[in-house]
Amino acid sequence: MGENCIFCKIISNEIPSQKIFEDGNTFAFLDINPASKGHVLVIPKKHYETLVDVPEEELKQLIVSVKKIAQAILKATKASGFNVLQNNGKVAGQLVNHIHFHVIPRFENDSIKFSLRANQVETNELEKIAELIKKEL
Amino acid sequence: MGENCIFCKIISNEIPSQKIFEDGNTFAFLDINPASKGHVLVIPKKHYETLVDVPEEELKQLIVSVKKIAQAILKATKASGFNVLQNNGKVAGQLVNHIHFHVIPRFENDSIKFSLRANQVETNELEKIAELIKKEL
Repeated sequence: MGENCIFCKIISNEIPSQKIFEDGNTFAFLDINPASKGHVLVIPKKHYETLVDVPEEELKQLIVSVKKIAQAILKATKASGFNVLQNNGKVAGQLVNHIHFHVIPRFENDSIKFSLRANQVETNELEKIAELIKKEL
Repeated sequence: MGENCIFCKIISNEIPSQKIFEDGNTFAFLDINPASKGHVLVIPKKHYETLVDVPEEELKQLIVSVKKIAQAILKATKASGFNVLQNNGKVAGQLVNHIHFHVIPRFENDSIKFSLRANQVETNELEKIAELIKKEL
């Protein structure tokens, strides 16, 4: 258990939450400050900080739960779509250092913006970066 | 293969890309309009539209590839963190209807904003939504 981890305390029921789903590996509950109606957080029961810290088997169970819960959210909220967002590190906007997947149902004119910058980059710049990444794989 | 799907054409090499990784199930390549240096798209080789359309086994392989590639991106770019973003449906900002995971390395002062609205919601409102979702699980 992460020391003073708010999500670990939610799993152990030390802090109350609106639980949606629980199995051996996964816990899911409503975000208390939802970006939209039906915004759920899906987390592993064991404390890991970021995606790269989660062992393969638990990660697989986690994404299967994300799919299952997304389907239920779509039916329940009649949303037209959804975002899955998963932030790793303070620089990426991670506020609680227990890995979590946001599942955010989306509605027409919901005024949420997930705009990515679309930079123009030269092909040889892309080639250089691709080589750097491939070397690490 | 999705009809006129640009990602299917990238997989079949009909359209060139900066490929990062490929195995039996997964293909990964640099986003041609990167939000940051090292922005990669990870996709299944088979054409599925959204996350809920991907069979469990392929979804598991996909998230394991996302982890592996994120680790390589972190090493290669020396990023301090990363976002995983996965948009489902036009309303959610999905531009190509072949499911894809964005892996976006993050750097101090990179000026990318992933701000989620944090709405204040009454507990009984949350309870109602939780009940609706749990009914569908």
